[in-house]
Amino acid sequence: MEKVRFGMIGLGNQGSQYAVNFFDKELIDNGVLTAVCDINPAKIQAIKEKIRPDGIEFYDDYKKMLDSGKIDAALVEVPHYFHPEIVTECLKRDIHVICEKPAGVYTRQVREMNEAAGKSRALFTMMFNQRTNSLYQKMREIIASGGIGKLQRFTWIVTNWYRTQSYYESGGWRATWAGEGGGVLINQCPHQLDLLQWVLGAMPVSVRAVCEYGKWHDIEVEDDVTAFLRFESGATGVFITTTGETPGTNRFEVSGTGGKLLCENDCIKYYKNRCDSIEFSLTSDKGFATPGCDLVLDEPRGANPQHLGIINNFANAVLGLEPLFIDGREGIRGVELMNAIELSGWKSGAEVTLPVDEEEYLDYLNRFRAVSRFDPSAEDRVEDTSGTFEGAKI
Amino acid sequence: MEKVRFGMIGLGNQGSQYAVNFFDKELIDNGVLTAVCDINPAKIQAIKEKIRPDGIEFYDDYKKMLDSGKIDAALVEVPHYFHPEIVTECLKRDIHVICEKPAGVYTRQVREMNEAAGKSRALFTMMFNQRTNSLYQKMREIIASGGIGKLQRFTWIVTNWYRTQSYYESGGWRATWAGEGGGVLINQCPHQLDLLQWVLGAMPVSVRAVCEYGKWHDIEVEDDVTAFLRFESGATGVFITTTGETPGTNRFEVSGTGGKLLCENDCIKYYKNRCDSIEFSLTSDKGFATPGCDLVLDEPRGANPQHLGIINNFANAVLGLEPLFIDGREGIRGVELMNAIELSGWKSGAEVTLPVDEEEYLDYLNRFRAVSRFDPSAEDRVEDTSGTFEGAKI
Repeated sequence: MEKVRFGMIGLGNQGSQYAVNFFDKELIDNGVLTAVCDINPAKIQAIKEKIRPDGIEFYDDYKKMLDSGKIDAALVEVPHYFHPEIVTECLKRDIHVICEKPAGVYTRQVREMNEAAGKSRALFTMMFNQRTNSLYQKMREIIASGGIGKLQRFTWIVTNWYRTQSYYESGGWRATWAGEGGGVLINQCPHQLDLLQWVLGAMPVSVRAVCEYGKWHDIEVEDDVTAFLRFESGATGVFITTTGETPGTNRFEVSGTGGKLLCENDCIKYYKNRCDSIEFSLTSDKGFATPGCDLVLDEPRGANPQHLGIINNFANAVLGLEPLFIDGREGIRGVELMNAIELSGWKSGAEVTLPVDEEEYLDYLNRFRAVSRFDPSAEDRVEDTSGTFEGAKI
Repeated sequence: MEKVRFGMIGLGNQGSQYAVNFFDKELIDNGVLTAVCDINPAKIQAIKEKIRPDGIEFYDDYKKMLDSGKIDAALVEVPHYFHPEIVTECLKRDIHVICEKPAGVYTRQVREMNEAAGKSRALFTMMFNQRTNSLYQKMREIIASGGIGKLQRFTWIVTNWYRTQSYYESGGWRATWAGEGGGVLINQCPHQLDLLQWVLGAMPVSVRAVCEYGKWHDIEVEDDVTAFLRFESGATGVFITTTGETPGTNRFEVSGTGGKLLCENDCIKYYKNRCDSIEFSLTSDKGFATPGCDLVLDEPRGANPQHLGIINNFANAVLGLEPLFIDGREGIRGVELMNAIELSGWKSGAEVTLPVDEEEYLDYLNRFRAVSRFDPSAEDRVEDTSGTFEGAKI
């Protein structure tokens, strides 16, 4: 094939953006939009007015689109609950697929999707567009190469996801247990929960969390979370997030016996100890001395192609031009983390061990879904999100 | 009286410093050192070689010193357990007293000391030398005047208290349940635990904490703590500390509906929202909009007279020249916070409500004291602490 033919499934905020800002502007070197699908005719109509519709087919049923022969790859941009099911339908048909984050709402559905991926010949990736950020890539490299020694602690404050009440009212599914399956953890934080394990190179073994539901908004799900994570190595960490504060903070600090990494204000700082701090502690005869350290790296963010980088890499990988950057099956890790934090919150901060008991999680979730205020008939609107993904930046 | 005549009780690191660096250098405008006391003759001998001994009487029994008629005021610089008892003996005799932090190890003894203070004509203050820091004073003023609106969250990372194993071996009482009564919370953090409630203007109503004992050192008490605090208003916060990391961080962030305060790197930043963020959320019709904010204050630390400021103010207050800066009875708040965090740690992170049950606390503590490795016969040494109180800075 000359260019990968993409079909867009779902024309909410993200799907519309990709169609208008990437495909219509021909920013995908080796990809072209040949079909779009939404169950809502108003959204189909709206997109027709925003992009050049020549050569694009419009659908209200995604399976018809998948079976049309008009696409090689799909972008899945629907509410989270439907990600695994639709991705699985793509994979079954060997249609390559990019799944919007998160991979799903609960691990059982994501595990089943991953099993389908294992059997498919199609490529599958996740829209973890923040993995393209040079700062996180550098943190990951330094930690993986032992540059901060033995991991001791991370602290990630991610409170720059401020959203108004109007945001929550823009879609009937938003911020409901039945429609979305969670709040700030599942909608805003899939990036950070993915990056956390990707940068640190490890999943925690247990989590304790305080989740507060509708603390700053009139919603039924969590909009304020403080989570304590423990790793097998003994390292611990705190993850703090909310959609109720502004001006927020996005500050990711990781410390180890060999030094400290700090990612803040679109910049990375790396302090390297002159010797291992535990070794120094055991051998120094001075009570108040330190091993000393040097600031060996202090630089602003470099490349960060974000969503465009993910889609371009994917199209190129489909054509065999470069390796796929992200194996979509890794998406389960962020869902696992989200589920562990959410479950601990539901259990009043009790310690939850990983992997999360997927049946227990679903039992709890289903109880909340049963009394959810989700109104499937409510009309969604597409938001103007240009320039406002504050939380998506460092 | 012309100048306040001070007696020093205890010649460990702090007592020796005050004698050598303040009194011997005549830096206390209205105070003079007329007596010192230590049960260890070697420490008496050592101090005689470091200061001009003319006009100073030397004691091995503090009560004899209190009854000698040679002093108007005392500085209590002994291990924490003895603070309340010795301060009480001073107050009973109407001898003015400065108590080194913390006020005591457990709230019952501090409450009893405070009762003695209520009955005494003498002045009583606590060595909360970090309250003299202009940055914390400014934070307190801004919060008290409503400058950040309704309090939402604090995050205080205080990991710049790195200590070597040698530090812990410098005194037999150090880092033992029986000798010191705790670890990083009681030795390094009394400042921050006092400042926390002083700056925020409120005590929490409950605490959950993970305390790790001897995680980074061969000690029996905690050297790594993560605590989650909840206030009556609904605000929450996280307090993180350790003596096992370097280079550490000291970063205190407080956010509210009216803005955000950040105290870090010896500097304060104040972001003021253009309107209350909750009000904005409820009235804006844009999902991704924010109220906007201005950086209205961004300045380095000004005055910070620290220990010298506390002693000078105290001497002046004794002479009626200025008001006493700190009522010593406020020391119980930091002890209460410390006890709540420690108790939650002992109870595997269970939620502890404040005020802490003082009998329950003492029961737990006594169980640990009974099996403590504290060796009262071990020889202490006096450390060179000059320029190394890293954690004492912002």
